[in-house]
Amino acid sequence: MQKDLKAFFEPEAVAVIGASREPNKIGYCIFKNFVDNFKGPVYPVNPNAAVILKKVCYSDITEIPKPVDLAVICVPAKYVPKVMEDCVKKKVKAAIIISAGFSEIGDKALEEKVLKIAKKGKIRVIGPNCLGVYDTFSKVDTLFLPSTKLGRPKPGGLSFISQSGAVGSVVLDYLSSEGLGISKFISYGNAIDVNEIDLLEYLSEDDSTKVICFYLEGTKDGRRMMEVAKKVVKKKPILVLKGGRTSEGTHAVSSHTGSLAGDDAIYETAFRQCGMIRVENLMDMFTFADALVTQPIPQGDRVQIVTNGGGFGVLATDAVIKEGLSLAQMSDKTKKKIKEVVPSYAIVGNPLDLIGDADMKRYEVALEALGTDPNVDAILCILLFQTVSLQPEVVHVVRGFASKNLKPIVVCSGGGEYAQKLMRELKEGKIPVFDSPEVAAKALKSLADYSRIRKSI
Amino acid sequence: MQKDLKAFFEPEAVAVIGASREPNKIGYCIFKNFVDNFKGPVYPVNPNAAVILKKVCYSDITEIPKPVDLAVICVPAKYVPKVMEDCVKKKVKAAIIISAGFSEIGDKALEEKVLKIAKKGKIRVIGPNCLGVYDTFSKVDTLFLPSTKLGRPKPGGLSFISQSGAVGSVVLDYLSSEGLGISKFISYGNAIDVNEIDLLEYLSEDDSTKVICFYLEGTKDGRRMMEVAKKVVKKKPILVLKGGRTSEGTHAVSSHTGSLAGDDAIYETAFRQCGMIRVENLMDMFTFADALVTQPIPQGDRVQIVTNGGGFGVLATDAVIKEGLSLAQMSDKTKKKIKEVVPSYAIVGNPLDLIGDADMKRYEVALEALGTDPNVDAILCILLFQTVSLQPEVVHVVRGFASKNLKPIVVCSGGGEYAQKLMRELKEGKIPVFDSPEVAAKALKSLADYSRIRKSI
Repeated sequence: MQKDLKAFFEPEAVAVIGASREPNKIGYCIFKNFVDNFKGPVYPVNPNAAVILKKVCYSDITEIPKPVDLAVICVPAKYVPKVMEDCVKKKVKAAIIISAGFSEIGDKALEEKVLKIAKKGKIRVIGPNCLGVYDTFSKVDTLFLPSTKLGRPKPGGLSFISQSGAVGSVVLDYLSSEGLGISKFISYGNAIDVNEIDLLEYLSEDDSTKVICFYLEGTKDGRRMMEVAKKVVKKKPILVLKGGRTSEGTHAVSSHTGSLAGDDAIYETAFRQCGMIRVENLMDMFTFADALVTQPIPQGDRVQIVTNGGGFGVLATDAVIKEGLSLAQMSDKTKKKIKEVVPSYAIVGNPLDLIGDADMKRYEVALEALGTDPNVDAILCILLFQTVSLQPEVVHVVRGFASKNLKPIVVCSGGGEYAQKLMRELKEGKIPVFDSPEVAAKALKSLADYSRIRKSI
Repeated sequence: MQKDLKAFFEPEAVAVIGASREPNKIGYCIFKNFVDNFKGPVYPVNPNAAVILKKVCYSDITEIPKPVDLAVICVPAKYVPKVMEDCVKKKVKAAIIISAGFSEIGDKALEEKVLKIAKKGKIRVIGPNCLGVYDTFSKVDTLFLPSTKLGRPKPGGLSFISQSGAVGSVVLDYLSSEGLGISKFISYGNAIDVNEIDLLEYLSEDDSTKVICFYLEGTKDGRRMMEVAKKVVKKKPILVLKGGRTSEGTHAVSSHTGSLAGDDAIYETAFRQCGMIRVENLMDMFTFADALVTQPIPQGDRVQIVTNGGGFGVLATDAVIKEGLSLAQMSDKTKKKIKEVVPSYAIVGNPLDLIGDADMKRYEVALEALGTDPNVDAILCILLFQTVSLQPEVVHVVRGFASKNLKPIVVCSGGGEYAQKLMRELKEGKIPVFDSPEVAAKALKSLADYSRIRKSI
């Protein structure tokens, strides 16, 4: 249990040590995030300012007359030990040290000094050399980039732990622009105290986190990571992207974070044994997470493909098989219902080709029959909006199906402005939409994987 | 040589047989495309109308007083033989039969009847059951969907041959919305006469086609396809996506187009032997094509990664190695120049991490040195626009490098509105931009592949 991490995410009161009046400074941006959005009291600390953003400024944290449980530190590295001593006096519970200039540039001693102070004062530390925390619910936001440059995702069900700040920031910006929501984001930097495993454990108890995404370059305690992960995945899925798969990548990792990336085969085995779902790249991670957040867990891996374009049916079939999923064999009852609405030459099989002149009625009948067919675990629905006969209102048909939550559905579609508008409407209806059958099949694979993991662990 | 296909792409005069006055009809849409955009004369043929879109309408094609070399046919299937007889009398050179209702619904006899008439009259036929042709230069456009529903890409260097109309239409719409240009698009449907191999041969002689993209489910003449492809790839690359890779996909192909998809291993070997570059999915096909159209062919496969985010450098390293490319070892001269502008703790290697506080100057110095470094064949440049210190004007630095055409460069970037705007500016500068290091590496792989193919075939 990691109850003592709560102050990072749901603090009562926050001090920003190194708050600044200058808009291009990190200490201004972070302080402004809190002033604008955080509900509780937030105090600026800076010995050279009297007032920042209309708030009285304190020369050190001990001067603040009321309790503070979270300190966000963004002073130059050399001042961090002194600031931490003050935090001990102030009895803060948690400190996020944004400042860089520690072991990542070779100064291991400074880092150890800071850790010693933190241990003495029982202060939990995230960082240093990190982006820190973004919590969409409590509005803790230590990201030192203005929202004009780095979008902030809306509240949602996925949480993201990132060993790399750069990876984290691009991802947040991407999720924000795609309209995907998150619960918590943590960039933990040099991890002198709180590490990726503590965070996994904390997020497993966090009700607003439905899926955990994890960018990892290496861990120092593989055994504990496995023990914790095994418990977590009983409650919620963990998607992991491992940087440093190849020996060259491993070498790059040691230059980057100094972690031991280790032999990839060991990580591969570990991930499999503890039920973490490994992904190949960042885009996959977040599209799969979206599927896991929005869709029910399937009973098995039998996928039914529905299409109004034969070529896409072929590509989807290849993709489903390539992912190791199986093609569902729909029941005779389902076939009978569908045959009533499609032309005699339509192939009522898998893929189910509703033919290029399909209208929304054909989709409606097919989805309704497949929804209750015990031979079908999940649906990969291809919608080519460009055809003459397919009405845009087919979007309501698919949204209606998804809202019943009978079995997972993902949509494959694509194209320009007209199609994009309809794809957005599907996404707003909490339906994962992919522009290629291959990615749609991979997303269904992650759902089937989690179904299997929950049964086996 | 396929000189007799010229009338499909550069006709002198066109008749649309089955032109209609009703805006929701296929025959209206196609005729309007020509009236709006085609430079030469275009005649509507319809026995039940006197005037369509202010043009005098003819009851059959033989009544047109001037020569016609291309007939576009969109009457119901049963009328096609009669219409083709008229085309023979009129001495048209080429007919695109859009109409469906032939072998794809089981009526093989009707198809054979049409072919017999065509052979007799020496008319080359594309179709039936196809989308036909879209040529961005001549403005031949038989796509029967209005541009509001299906975007039309601008002129550019790639041409696309598609065995599937649905795949073709989604792709055109996608290319249009991405701002990628094409030369010619051909959906050849049932291919009773002109087939994919004839088209490959024609496009190899077409100066405006720089790269050929090819969606194939199966061919009836593998030997000739290989012979032709071997010749074509000496002049320009062919990217091929094969539908029906798995045995289940092969089964779906036989339901769809009736082609024999055949054993995938045979296609795999054939593609390799004749130097066609196989891709895994549609998105890859068009992103690689963009790289092949815009970038010079590299001397070899040694890739230098440049980044301002360590985590992305790690992911790119993994991706480059996974694709079978090698990591360039930059010269000492290059290292020396770069070390002058980066902090002492920066790792001047591969990946070259310019560190999170990199500004545009560091990119400028690095790119300039790498551009003339004989140890470097291609550059994978990661730009995290979200960082505090990277000016948006770095876009000009990268565009300036690319305009020198020294060696290929692809960019990996991502994020929300701010980043997307800068990514568009890069694309406008003819630089391929990818949102993941994996796809960027794949694009470089296709360039290295084509370099190798040109040397070996």
